[in-house]
Amino acid sequence: MHLKLQEIKQYLLELQNSICNELEKIDGKAKFQSDVWQRTEGGGGDSRVIENGAVFEKGGVNFSHVFGVLPDVLKSESRNANYFHATGVSIVIHTQNPFVPIIHMNVRYFCMMENENSEIIDEWFGGGIDVSPAYPNETDTLHLHQTLKTACDKFDASFYPAFKTWCDDYFTIKHRNEMRGVGGIFFDHLRPKNDDEKQHLFSFLQAIGNSFIPIYKTIVENNKDISFTDKNKEWQFIRRGRYAEFNLVYDRGTHFGLKTNGRIESILMSLPPHAAWKYDYHPEKNSEEEKTLTFFQPKNWF
Amino acid sequence: MHLKLQEIKQYLLELQNSICNELEKIDGKAKFQSDVWQRTEGGGGDSRVIENGAVFEKGGVNFSHVFGVLPDVLKSESRNANYFHATGVSIVIHTQNPFVPIIHMNVRYFCMMENENSEIIDEWFGGGIDVSPAYPNETDTLHLHQTLKTACDKFDASFYPAFKTWCDDYFTIKHRNEMRGVGGIFFDHLRPKNDDEKQHLFSFLQAIGNSFIPIYKTIVENNKDISFTDKNKEWQFIRRGRYAEFNLVYDRGTHFGLKTNGRIESILMSLPPHAAWKYDYHPEKNSEEEKTLTFFQPKNWF
Repeated sequence: MHLKLQEIKQYLLELQNSICNELEKIDGKAKFQSDVWQRTEGGGGDSRVIENGAVFEKGGVNFSHVFGVLPDVLKSESRNANYFHATGVSIVIHTQNPFVPIIHMNVRYFCMMENENSEIIDEWFGGGIDVSPAYPNETDTLHLHQTLKTACDKFDASFYPAFKTWCDDYFTIKHRNEMRGVGGIFFDHLRPKNDDEKQHLFSFLQAIGNSFIPIYKTIVENNKDISFTDKNKEWQFIRRGRYAEFNLVYDRGTHFGLKTNGRIESILMSLPPHAAWKYDYHPEKNSEEEKTLTFFQPKNWF
Repeated sequence: MHLKLQEIKQYLLELQNSICNELEKIDGKAKFQSDVWQRTEGGGGDSRVIENGAVFEKGGVNFSHVFGVLPDVLKSESRNANYFHATGVSIVIHTQNPFVPIIHMNVRYFCMMENENSEIIDEWFGGGIDVSPAYPNETDTLHLHQTLKTACDKFDASFYPAFKTWCDDYFTIKHRNEMRGVGGIFFDHLRPKNDDEKQHLFSFLQAIGNSFIPIYKTIVENNKDISFTDKNKEWQFIRRGRYAEFNLVYDRGTHFGLKTNGRIESILMSLPPHAAWKYDYHPEKNSEEEKTLTFFQPKNWF
């Protein structure tokens, strides 16, 4: 059991390394800086941050493995559990060019036991990948959804349609009745019933983690050399404002982190380097900006 | 009773007008635009917005009077109440010059009854004024607190110390252990026990509303001609990021509005025109920016 946690952790650490290496190659200028941190109550993490790159303005590829006494806010999940482990990789990348989208990925594993050395009494996998462009286009959006669907279909034909809908729903800015981006997949509380299922779900998690670079490299390369104006930059800032709104008002991970005394800088790494809010802003009729709005409503891509 | 509501409303409408007039004079360039809106379930408001002024970058002076069936989220407050009126003026002003602070004011009255035409069974006043400078200084902060203390002391010697502490506490960004500004006063649920007390509390509310211009005009004039650099502007953006964090994560009024299908643009008018988040940012040792940090901790000014 603890061997399995070790295996999951090992995969996540390798994933973090390989994603950082690939993103540095794509950027060509900036390098990730590593911030290793400890959690007083048990565990810690390694926050890798890239800033002021040629392509990436501000991004984080964070690994964490925290454990210890189960916080009260999680007690309701399982009656006899007093101890937990949580490990995952969490990524948010903000880009210089407004035509290159924000990407978000999270892959995580959570388990609870009665105490430090006892058997697992509850455990699950969660995660997802979603993309938030200021200027969405069909080619990139289809590439995103097709890559995720292909990865999902190898494990369970029900995964992609279910997790795509879950993503559309989860990443909706409810007070605006609008998605923060063009979706992707989102899943949580995937509980294995036995060892085979656990291996199966872990393999699925790996397939999602491993699809990050194939998804994002293509999208970045498709768009990074498009020239842009101040108006494009302003629209990017406004869409980033919506991104910040979602994360600060609705995101469960953000709220969980803030309430459980998590590492603030790693949690808020997701916030954009610059964002803007205008009063009652609506894009001009028939402008490129107005055309983007249909992408921010749920849509079946296949 | 309904006459009294009319009187309160009349005062608030006059307050909105006089504050808009005075702010236009101070700005000298931009004018307020009025957006009159209706609430489907009853009532509405008048959002007055100023943008791209000489002094004011983005600001709102909003009046609203909403009424109707009591939303479920408020039912717990009083058992037999099914109907409510809420009226108030709410102000947030963001400025061009990073040396001129953000100011926030709210004055409001709330009452509940069993149904539309029955007697009031619960009612209260609430509000406050607080200031969030990027570069706080002692002169302006003392002027703010002294003006508020003088206004409070005419009504009850316990008001200023209680409401100053309440403000320090309420406007704390808990995950950063830091106030969003230099405080001011905050009060809520001031319930009159009889007609005399109601008149007394309403006079107090007026005294606070009327202190807005004397407070802000002086602070604006003290600072609006200070020349500033890109570095000062960047620090303003970072402090505005903290302002947005507070409003989106903690502010009860914002959450109440978003959850009860309020007018989104009037609620989010408070968000800054531009804001910034840097990873793990700390001002340089002994810089002007670092010196500001002591102002963002609660402090007794007298």
